[in-house]
Amino acid sequence: MSSSPGSSVVITPEQLLEDWQGHRRLTRRVIDAFPEESLFKHSIGGMRPFSALVMEMVKMAVPILRGEITGQWTSYDPPDATTKAELLALWDNATADIDRMWPDIPPQRFQEVDTAFGQWTMPGYAMFLYAIDNEIHHRSQGYVYLRSLGIEPPPFYVR
Amino acid sequence: MSSSPGSSVVITPEQLLEDWQGHRRLTRRVIDAFPEESLFKHSIGGMRPFSALVMEMVKMAVPILRGEITGQWTSYDPPDATTKAELLALWDNATADIDRMWPDIPPQRFQEVDTAFGQWTMPGYAMFLYAIDNEIHHRSQGYVYLRSLGIEPPPFYVR
Repeated sequence: MSSSPGSSVVITPEQLLEDWQGHRRLTRRVIDAFPEESLFKHSIGGMRPFSALVMEMVKMAVPILRGEITGQWTSYDPPDATTKAELLALWDNATADIDRMWPDIPPQRFQEVDTAFGQWTMPGYAMFLYAIDNEIHHRSQGYVYLRSLGIEPPPFYVR
Repeated sequence: MSSSPGSSVVITPEQLLEDWQGHRRLTRRVIDAFPEESLFKHSIGGMRPFSALVMEMVKMAVPILRGEITGQWTSYDPPDATTKAELLALWDNATADIDRMWPDIPPQRFQEVDTAFGQWTMPGYAMFLYAIDNEIHHRSQGYVYLRSLGIEPPPFYVR
């Protein structure tokens, strides 16, 4: 951090970015912990395989950030990855895009209410928290999938 | 909210509280969706039953809040709930405590670095996010448990 935040600041934009990227580093380790076939096929209780959950995260992350920066809500719908390497490449591209684009968020957008993709109306901070929370939520499904496969997942507290 | 936050505010203390309590309302619905016996016994891949995960959340929430308010890190170790009603009562007590205690957080504590329980060194905001993230993470295990029991969990986006 280049400067110390004021005494009544809860969290700075830079700290929120670091929180998100910390989660993204962990999610990447969870993706990588899956055997190739299980990543695309393993399921419990009729739920989607972990690869599909990760594709959902990929389709949300940069479009949400772009929408908060520009007010334009455009979808990003790449073809589904079919190998772990492709999925990790999509992940890493998004990670780099987020780092590059983050400083362009106009400061007032964190509190400004907008409607994302024509249906989600909330302030910018809530939209970012939703993206992070959705990642944590679906990543945890991946933890259970890994455990059910007899694989020890990466520790939750390491980011 | 009684007043509009400044144009460079990411999130206010009141908004962070509402985010947490929204997650707590959802977690309560997930607890309540479990059949009594499954709450205490159902497991996948050798992981703890959902009741034990909820007890972990109970033991973290108010002690973390108290620590951020007072700088005193004292554990809270109630006997494990043995019925769903007992678990929900512990949950509801913590929810009320959090609402009551939250306004007592000194504003500078969100950015002040402290060591929680002698081992977790981070600013206050990161400690609160950790508590929320840990709740989301373990609650999602509950989602998978419910799906594996053939039970539709409550929607993630309703708080």
